[in-house]
Amino acid sequence: MPDLHPDLAPIAQLVGTWRGSGTGSYPTIEDFAYREEVTFGHVGKPFLAYGQKTRDAGTDLPLHAETGYWRLIEGRDVEVVLAHPTGIVELLLGTFDDGVFDLGSSAVVGTPTAKSVTEIRRRFEVSGDELRYELAMAAVGKPLTHHLSATLHRVTVD
Amino acid sequence: MPDLHPDLAPIAQLVGTWRGSGTGSYPTIEDFAYREEVTFGHVGKPFLAYGQKTRDAGTDLPLHAETGYWRLIEGRDVEVVLAHPTGIVELLLGTFDDGVFDLGSSAVVGTPTAKSVTEIRRRFEVSGDELRYELAMAAVGKPLTHHLSATLHRVTVD
Repeated sequence: MPDLHPDLAPIAQLVGTWRGSGTGSYPTIEDFAYREEVTFGHVGKPFLAYGQKTRDAGTDLPLHAETGYWRLIEGRDVEVVLAHPTGIVELLLGTFDDGVFDLGSSAVVGTPTAKSVTEIRRRFEVSGDELRYELAMAAVGKPLTHHLSATLHRVTVD
Repeated sequence: MPDLHPDLAPIAQLVGTWRGSGTGSYPTIEDFAYREEVTFGHVGKPFLAYGQKTRDAGTDLPLHAETGYWRLIEGRDVEVVLAHPTGIVELLLGTFDDGVFDLGSSAVVGTPTAKSVTEIRRRFEVSGDELRYELAMAAVGKPLTHHLSATLHRVTVD
């Protein structure tokens, strides 16, 4: 395993695997509960490789997934690029300060068969071995609305 | 392991891990040679999870990576969403016919620190245990120009 790239030192605490649970809601769907696993990996270059998978808390069937990369610029500016299996790509910009990532979409683009998503906002807060996040989105004609809230705990450092 | 989603049956041969080597060129850089590993996974839903990593053929240091999802619509239309650690998201549309994926970007969007990429074309051809691809791109002010060519072979089916 190579050393972490120095650009990533301020967010080194993300590296590893995190597991936990969350709840989701949106005006167009039934409320739901899920289990989640998130991994942040690195190869010595100035980005973290991010992967996320969720499963239904009741049936254990796979729900959502997303994959991409996080970059930290000059210790404060954050750039995140993500792909979703629903046919959406998401580009998030924002800041990292005192354990909090405050991120908003600069672009959300979908394939012809993807549902319309026009804006996504994500707030992550990392504190020791706990990672919490909230996600709001404007989708299928609705304005920016709370969608997801979850709390994860570190299970490995790697 | 769940059964493959029936929408993916025409491209079931992609599922697994592929390894091989390729060469790269572009008007703005030195020619280079690389080793590559590609994985196509699934969870029973109508998409393939795609991951790609390359290493310098000489030094074995990590070069590029990309991650995302592939979908097949009605047996012929292909939608691919990708994220790159260089701060780029890529949305490809095209067709699958007789083992050939012919794909062109409908959107390429970058973060403020990403290099400018305005168009990407990819052609994949799968035949038995061999997967070949070519990639051309318009980047950093150059017109659409050949960039990558590689040949991989299946190492696992999973």
